Formats: sequence, structure tokens, C-alpha cells
Amino acid sequence: MNQPVWIWYPGDMELFHGMKQNFEREERGYDWPAFWKMDDWRKNIRFFRTYQLEEPEIFEVHASGVGHVAVNGEKYPFEQKIALHPGVNKIEVFAGSRTGLPAVFIESEGGRIESNETWMADDFTEMHPVGTSPLFAEKSVDPNEVPYVEEALEPASVNAVKGGTLADFGRMVNGWPVIHFTDTENAEQAFTICYGESAEEATDLKWCYYKETGLVRDDFREGAEQPKLRRRAFRYIFLPDVSPEEAEISAVHTKIPLEVKADCPVKDPQLKKIWDICRETYLLCGGLFFIDGIKRDRWIWGGDACQSFAVNPYLLRDPEINKRTLRALFGNRPLRQHINTIVDYSLLAVIALENEHRTYGDGSFLREMYPKAEALTELLLSQKNEDGFLIPRERDWIYIDWADIDKVGAISAEQILLWRALKAMAYCARTLAYEDGLHAESETIRGQSDIRNVILHGPDGRPLPEDERMAEMVPVSDAERGYLLQTAESYDACAEKLREKINAFFWDPDQGAYIDSYESGKKHVSRHPNIFALLYDFAEGEQAGEIISHVLENPEIPAITTPYFKFYELDVFGKLGMKQRLEEEIRSYWGGMIERGAVTIWEEFDPKVEGAKQYAMYGDPFGKSLCHAWGASPVYLMGKYLAE
Amino acid sequence: MNQPVWIWYPGDMELFHGMKQNFEREERGYDWPAFWKMDDWRKNIRFFRTYQLEEPEIFEVHASGVGHVAVNGEKYPFEQKIALHPGVNKIEVFAGSRTGLPAVFIESEGGRIESNETWMADDFTEMHPVGTSPLFAEKSVDPNEVPYVEEALEPASVNAVKGGTLADFGRMVNGWPVIHFTDTENAEQAFTICYGESAEEATDLKWCYYKETGLVRDDFREGAEQPKLRRRAFRYIFLPDVSPEEAEISAVHTKIPLEVKADCPVKDPQLKKIWDICRETYLLCGGLFFIDGIKRDRWIWGGDACQSFAVNPYLLRDPEINKRTLRALFGNRPLRQHINTIVDYSLLAVIALENEHRTYGDGSFLREMYPKAEALTELLLSQKNEDGFLIPRERDWIYIDWADIDKVGAISAEQILLWRALKAMAYCARTLAYEDGLHAESETIRGQSDIRNVILHGPDGRPLPEDERMAEMVPVSDAERGYLLQTAESYDACAEKLREKINAFFWDPDQGAYIDSYESGKKHVSRHPNIFALLYDFAEGEQAGEIISHVLENPEIPAITTPYFKFYELDVFGKLGMKQRLEEEIRSYWGGMIERGAVTIWEEFDPKVEGAKQYAMYGDPFGKSLCHAWGASPVYLMGKYLAE
Repeated sequence: MNQPVWIWYPGDMELFHGMKQNFEREERGYDWPAFWKMDDWRKNIRFFRTYQLEEPEIFEVHASGVGHVAVNGEKYPFEQKIALHPGVNKIEVFAGSRTGLPAVFIESEGGRIESNETWMADDFTEMHPVGTSPLFAEKSVDPNEVPYVEEALEPASVNAVKGGTLADFGRMVNGWPVIHFTDTENAEQAFTICYGESAEEATDLKWCYYKETGLVRDDFREGAEQPKLRRRAFRYIFLPDVSPEEAEISAVHTKIPLEVKADCPVKDPQLKKIWDICRETYLLCGGLFFIDGIKRDRWIWGGDACQSFAVNPYLLRDPEINKRTLRALFGNRPLRQHINTIVDYSLLAVIALENEHRTYGDGSFLREMYPKAEALTELLLSQKNEDGFLIPRERDWIYIDWADIDKVGAISAEQILLWRALKAMAYCARTLAYEDGLHAESETIRGQSDIRNVILHGPDGRPLPEDERMAEMVPVSDAERGYLLQTAESYDACAEKLREKINAFFWDPDQGAYIDSYESGKKHVSRHPNIFALLYDFAEGEQAGEIISHVLENPEIPAITTPYFKFYELDVFGKLGMKQRLEEEIRSYWGGMIERGAVTIWEEFDPKVEGAKQYAMYGDPFGKSLCHAWGASPVYLMGKYLAE
Repeated sequence: MNQPVWIWYPGDMELFHGMKQNFEREERGYDWPAFWKMDDWRKNIRFFRTYQLEEPEIFEVHASGVGHVAVNGEKYPFEQKIALHPGVNKIEVFAGSRTGLPAVFIESEGGRIESNETWMADDFTEMHPVGTSPLFAEKSVDPNEVPYVEEALEPASVNAVKGGTLADFGRMVNGWPVIHFTDTENAEQAFTICYGESAEEATDLKWCYYKETGLVRDDFREGAEQPKLRRRAFRYIFLPDVSPEEAEISAVHTKIPLEVKADCPVKDPQLKKIWDICRETYLLCGGLFFIDGIKRDRWIWGGDACQSFAVNPYLLRDPEINKRTLRALFGNRPLRQHINTIVDYSLLAVIALENEHRTYGDGSFLREMYPKAEALTELLLSQKNEDGFLIPRERDWIYIDWADIDKVGAISAEQILLWRALKAMAYCARTLAYEDGLHAESETIRGQSDIRNVILHGPDGRPLPEDERMAEMVPVSDAERGYLLQTAESYDACAEKLREKINAFFWDPDQGAYIDSYESGKKHVSRHPNIFALLYDFAEGEQAGEIISHVLENPEIPAITTPYFKFYELDVFGKLGMKQRLEEEIRSYWGGMIERGAVTIWEEFDPKVEGAKQYAMYGDPFGKSLCHAWGASPVYLMGKYLAE
């Protein structure tokens, strides 16, 4: 007998908590909600399942939201024992919540009636198998709250600095400081807490990102139970005008536990240290979702997340965090905005769905996401210039990288990603056509609103006993398979046509490289599209050889400067067997940061810049994030290419 | 200088509070959220306006939600005075709220910067002029709360009944009882409060709809400050096992004030009494929205609301409540479900938009709603059988009336409503084409996501001074006008084609009437489609005459039994000049209820049923609502046809 779990409309837990995550950015006294359309979780849900009972049973429904239980149409309140007779029992649970996540937890005395993945959720237009998560498997764990685990930390050092006290925790903390002022006579005195990822930031009263001010009242007195301060990231805490004797400083770190399953794959001490610090960075930027960094944005960014997905099998092999992140990123149909408004992030997210299935083989998740991927691909294919290339709409962002790329009109890096995304869609469609469906959703596939879903098999692949099946069952239909195979073919054909056009418009035989833009007339060559062309096997044979010599190994083409795109470049080095170059890059770039004392990997690193200036970015003296997920890629690169 | 008001994304306040309304249904200890898809308000909004200042100004932003203010890109926290220099100031306010309505209130020392209807709201995919409401005009009135006005009431009588105490307030109350037990020795004793719209309901401990139990503790002792009990509707309060001396009973009634502007249009005492009680019923079922009734559903039903809209000009002449209700009913594009799942309610809502404009001439509201009406009409026109008639999809409800209507296949009543709705759409399109737009939204009209909106004129029609205009302005374009006129023509043509087909398939010359269904072969005639045919001038000349004699005046055709459809029937009597029949019906049906002691109009009335049985409906002994909005139609009928 399994244990019951909390159930909700699929994807909604992720939209609910994803919105919280994307609203958490804070900067110098103001909040900064993410600048894109936030998709909503659903507020009014009918959960249902039919049971064929051979014995009587007594069950009880707990819910987040208002509503009732109906057994064969007869209504009962929540939190009440309900007796069932043997025979057919159609159980419906109606739950509405205007401000929370409608979710239910159902338990029974005999274990025959339990909320689990065999239930269905209906928002009154679409019915789907419910969403569940191992994070919300206990009745006592409210799915409206993030189930953080708290860890008490003491500072590694406390020193008198600049007339105040600087505590260094020796590591990045994502939580809050706990401060007790020992001088109780100062109870009415004002205090300031300055936070910093660097000592320079913490001791800069004006420009540090986070600051907390208040009065030393009872809460901050010695021995007082202190209210939790807002969750923030820091390594240093600075108390101006307070001497080390006047305050006790500790901290609480919070996390969603992620189980590390891999050991460092190399023995070399420098590489091992790099791996350790990348691992630390990765774990800090993971949790309920993959976020970009712990201090600044704390938003769920698609491009960053896709790199975190790549690292995952080499450290955690945890598909759950990937699924949560992808659900939060895709949002709801109809999809009218690109992921984070960035066209390339939409493309990378579609490609990620193929990778997810290739890595973890979760057909049920692919089925859940496919209609959304299809809708997103439709949007992508609708944005064409007169030559048929993908171009941005008015509010779209073509990112690719913080780099000097000629972005006039259609750009080649985007087209190569589109080509790869179309191949991914073909893979997904073809896979679903032959997937013995855990959840067969014949009509969902076509993006229709009127849907039948089925559960025929348990998660272990065995057919469910009759009393565990859904009331309404439809086998995976031949029509569905036919549709999917036909769709796959048309994606393939579309990709092939695009490949020919990309070669006709963007390949410059004189330079032996793909140019960024044909429209500007500049024939500017950047590494980016050429790296994609090699990485995704878009360029083959001689063309690939030309790119390697004329771009990859050509010092005149400006170097990649962000760890974000270094991920792709180094992946290509690894793929091409250029392991020495790969290793050198890791040693110099990542090793360089660590030589500067980094305890986590930074958003960007320029060895030429020193002192406090190295923390500046985006025109802000402390704008650089010093614990940034996209820096963790050596865990992937070492695991894949340098493992001994 | 105007006063600032709270602003939000247009329609969102109504979705926010509409969801609350639709989640408030309660029945014998459980909650009953409405059984349809609940559209969400948006959670992440950018508000913006550009000001051209000639003098410095200091302003401050108050917000419901997290976020910040940006002035020409520079960020500031909420609740802080911000100084502006003369010149161009682009002000953006970013507000996100996961659980509330993102809304802002902006005030300034010189009155130059104020949140009002000249601001724009952007959910990062669509930009529209903001929503406002006279209900939320004060900074202190939180748009997240319903601004109820409370009124203390004393019972008209308190009597010992069935071993307990029955308080009769002599009127319907929508609020809560306040009860103080005078016998303070009973502090630990349990008590029960039973509510009833009728004395029979209140004294039926098992079947009364609402019951509250608790312990007489401090809160219910004499003189204690009592927590507000849940808001419910009742006329009677019954305390079992409590004698009148042991408890003091009073009540608090709550309402959104609606200003009555009309006097009773007739002098006859019986009609005047009917008018008074209809008026009372109407005011009780109005408020933030028009709901069906105050005790049972308390949901916002489209068909019921449309009748309330008809009454409105004869009592309140208040377009605001209509607008709020229509916004809550329509929800968000894309529209995938009919209003309350009922196909005829969608049709009636589209027709209501024409009536709204004809009555109040609010072009701005029409512009706001038109894209939604267009989307709903598209959905309606997509649901066709092979003969081209509107039929329900799998989860659609064809209601028309609680009556014996042959609903096999396409039914005539629905087609005639569709014909009328198409004419309404043509009217709306044509009106907008020649409306000197307060809000010119050239592309909204085509349902596109990328939109420019403009404010060129103030609400008084005069051009706005330059420093009050929006940053981006586009005049109402010829292209838009052309599109609208062409659309209007195509709606007209579609209606005309439909009319011919309805006459070909549903008109039965032998019976001189429209039959319900041609598919069933039964040729069943009910009053309903024929009443619509007369009311909407669908049937003209001889055909109309035949319907009058063969249906309207034919006692063999089953009578209309619900006040819901009596509204349409009596409207036809009035329209045809059959004033005596109209008056007789009002006297017998409405007068009949009042003779039974009704203080508000019931959901249904059958003079043949007496005693407690007259309160039963839907198989429930007290299922009938005794204060039901659709019973208030005599206010309209008397005002329109019987005014002296």
C-alpha cells in the first residue's frame, strides 16, 4: 500500500510557488517583481476518481481551499469521516481557493481511498491527471508553503572593521542573520544590518544590496526569541557602529534538500577544488526551482535553468527539480509570451524537453508538457520575416549572450536553435507515438479543450487493478499515433527546409563561418552561432572543419566572456575531443575566481579587474551575483569529458 | 483638480471580487464553489503614464502588492515622497501580488500626478487603460476588501417557539446575528444558532441551510465584543433550548449602497406594495455585483444579471454595477467556456452589451468589452451542427428555462437568441466605428496581443491638456473604422442567413409557431422560442400574429411557471400593448406571494402549494430562495408599461 500525497491540478503547484520565487527580488529597499507575464495557477478544481470497492471503507478529505466532497453525488464537508459501501463509488472533491493552491489530501482507514497520481483534476474546461511532488507527501506539509529545512550557522570570523563589526560566515548563506545585542541599555537605539556577498559590499553602507534597520528592542536583546528576518543571500554581515563585544551574530541557512549522488570525478587537487565550489554553487541555486543566483534576481530564468538541467545527471540525477522548473517556465496555454520574454529561452526549453526524456525516460512528463511545447513552437513558427526566418516581435528579447553580436533582423544563432528545437519536437512527437502511455491523452495532443485522460498503468508500468483505474478510460488511439507521427514528419521537414535556408543566407564561404546577420550587410562573425552549429551537429563534415579553424581556433574572433556561453563553448571543446583546451579553460577561468577567494562561482569573471571593481556589473557597484548557477557547468564538463 | 483613485488592470477588480462572490456559497456545513472555470485576475502589472511638467512636483505611490516606482528609469520604493523635475517624466509603477489585487493609488502635493483613468496598465502582454471604480476612490478604502456598509438591526419580534427562541427581523438580512446570552453561568454551554428565510426553515434544526454552533464563552456573554459571524442571509434566527429571557438577539445587515433614483410609478396600493417589495428584493441582490439570490447560490449568474440590467434604469440608473457584473461574467480572453457554462447566458450577455450602450452611451466600456464579446461570438459560431445551427459542446448547458422544452439537437430558442446576439454585435461594431474614442485601441479590436491604447480626451469629451495625455498616442484609424464596419456587415449577413434557416427548419405553419426542435421529430411547441421571436422582432407581420393567437393566447401551450421567463413573457405583453394582461399577471403572481407574507420575491411561486412545502425546490425542503433577483422584474415592467 502506498501512502497518500497532496494532489493539485498538474503544474499548478509550480506556478503558485514559481510566482512567489519571481516576486522575491529585492534591491536597496524596494521589490522588483520579474518583468514578464505571470501565469496563474487555477483557483477552482474538481478532483475525481471512481473506486470499485469490495469492502466498506472510511475516508477523510483534507483540503487547502473551500469546498466539499461528493460521493455518488451526495455532499459532505471536508475534515469528516465518510463511510463508503462496497460497490462503485464515484468520489469528487471540489476545492476552490482564491489566494492559495487548491489541493487535497485524502486518507482512509483501510488504505483503499488515497489521493495519489491515479486521481484526475478538472478546472471545468480541461481534465488531466493530478500533479504531485515528493516534497508534499505528508499531510502535515502544507503545499502552500515552501518546505525549507533550516540550518544554524556560526560565523567563521568576526572582526572589528571600519568602526563596526564584520561577520564572515566563510560560505554563502541563503537565510537570515540572528543578532543579539548584548548591551541591553541600548534597547531604544537604532541599528543597521548590512549584508554582502563580499566584504566590500557588506561594509558599503550606501551600496550594499540588502540592509535592515530597526530598534534594538526586546527581539534583538540577548536571549530574546527573534523574528525571522527576510530570506536573503549573504556571506558577510556588517553592523556599523557596533563593536564585536556588543553583538552576537549567527545565521540560519535555509534550503530544499537535494541529494548529491556523485563524487568528484577527478583527482587533481585544483580541479577537485573547482568541482567542489561548482557543486556548492549549484546546490545553493537549486531548491524548489533552479534560479539564476541567490542574491540578485532570484528569478527562474530559462536559459540558466537549461544549463542546470545539463549538470543535474552529473551530480543529483534528480528529475523532480527539472520538472518543477520546466512547469514554472512554460506556464499555461495559450502561450503568448516567450519564456522570460526571451526567444532563445523558449527554444532552449523545447530542446530541454527532449533532453529530459532522453535522460530520465519519463513519458508521463513528456505527455504533460507536449501540448505546451507544441503551442510554444506554433508561436515561434508564427514569427517570420519575409525570408521565412524567426524574428522577434515587438516586446521579444533576442538574448543569446551578453556579447557583441550583430542583431539586425533575423540572426543565425536563433535560427540554428530553431532548427534544433524542431528536431526536438519531432523526437518528442515520435516518442509519444510509441510510448505505452501512463497517461494517454488523445485529444490534449491536439491542444483541444475537451479532453479525456486515462490511467491504465501504475508508475511501475504494470496494469492497475480494476478498483484503482479511472472511471473513464480510453486506450492510446491509432488516430493519436497517426497524428503524432505525421506531426513529427512535418517538424522534420520544416527543420530540413530551414537548414537549407540558413546555409543559403548565413554561411559565408569566404570567412568559413556563419555570419550573425545577413540583413545588416556587415557579415559580422561571432562565436555564438558557430558554436551552436558544432554543438548541435548542424554543421557537418567540411563545414564543421572550417568553423573549427576559422572561428573556434581563431583568436581574432572575440572570445566568449560569460560563463553562460562558456558552457556551450567548452561543451564543444569536449565534444570535439579538445580536452586539453577544455581543462585549461576550467583551470584558468574557474581557478582564477577561486584564487581570488571565491566560495561560489560568480556571474562573470575578468582576471584583469581587481579590488572592489570586480563586483560591479550592469552599471551597479555590487550588481554582480557571486553565486550564480550558470557558473556550475564544470560539474557537467568534468563529469562528461574529464572523468578519470 | 480631480481626486486620485485606486487603479488596476481593467476588469481585474471584478475578477478578484467576483471569484470571492462565487466561492461564498454555503450549505449545511460545507462550501460550494461555483462549478465553472474561474478566470483569474492578473498578478503582475506595470502601470505607466508620462507627464510633461512645467513645475516641480512631489508625489507618492501606495500599492497593494510588492514592487517599486521608476521615474525615467530610476527606481524608488513605495510609500516614499519622490521629487520630480519640470520636463518629461515617464512614471512606471511595478506592482505584483500573488494573493491580492495589484493596485496603486498615487497622490501628489501639487495635484499634478494622480492615479486616475488616464493611466495605462500592462500585464506584459497587453496594455490597456486602467480600471477604476467609484467604490474605491479613497486611499483608505482597500481594493482587496468589499466596502460593505454595516447597519444594526433589531428584531421585529422575539417569541418562544418549539422550546426555543425565534427572532423575526421582519425583513431579509444579509449579514450576521449578534447574540448575547444573559445567563452567564452557562458560559461553557454549547449553543446552536439556526438561520431561516422562513420561520419553518429556522426552526428546522436538521434542514435549515445555515447553522452555527459554539460555546457560550466570553464572546457571546452579555456585553462582550462579539466576532463577526459569517455573512449569511436570513429573516429569522432560532435558538433551540433557549428562552427569550436568556438571550439578546440583534443583527448587522451589510450592503454596498445603491442609490434609488426612482419613485414608484403607479398609485394603486397593491401594485405599489408589489413595487416596494420588488425594489427591496432588487437592492438586496445587488451590491458589488448582481447575484441570483442572497441565501443559496449567491453566484453571479448571467441570465439573472441580464434581467437585473433591465430593471436598473427604472430604479437606480447606475451603470457601474452593470459594468462590474459584466466584467465578472465575461472573464478573460481566450473565452473557452460559456458564461456559467450556459450557452444562452453567453448570448444574453452579448445582447446586454448593446443594451448597455443604448442606455448609458458609454463608448469606453463598449471598447473595453468588445474584444471579449467578439471572442465569445467566435466561440458561439464555432459550435455548429451540419445544418449550421448552434449546438452545445459536451460540457455546455442549454438552459432557456426550468420548463418542458424539447432540447434534442439544435433548439429554436437558442437560434433566435443567436440571431439577436449577431445583431447586437453588428450594432456594437458599427457604434465603435463612429465613436470618437475615449480609448482608441486600434488593434485590440482584432483581438491581437500587441496593442496601442490612447487617451486623447477626458471623460467630459474635451481634449486633454498635453501634460495629461499618454506618452503614446494613435488617433482612431481609418483602418480600424474600416475593419469595424466590415465586421458589422458580416455579422448582419450572418444573422440574415440564420433567420432564413430558422424559418425553414423551425417554423411550423400548421401550428403557427416555432417548434423547439426539428431533429426529434416531435414538433413540440413551447412558449419560449415564440416569446423570444416576438420580443426581439424576429417574427414580423403575419407570423407574429399567428404566434400571438396560437401560442401566447393559447391555454393549451403550457404556461410559463418561473419568474425568470415570466420576465420575457410579460415584456412581450407590454410590448404588444396587452397592458391589462400584464397587470393581472403582476397582481396574481407577485401579489400572491405578498399575500403569503413575502417580504421579498421568491425564486418561484405556485399558488397551489401551501405551508412548509412552498419553500421546497430542487428536491430540497428549503432549497427555494426567498429573495431572488429575477423576481424584481415588475420594477421594469411597471416603469416601462404601467407608469401613470
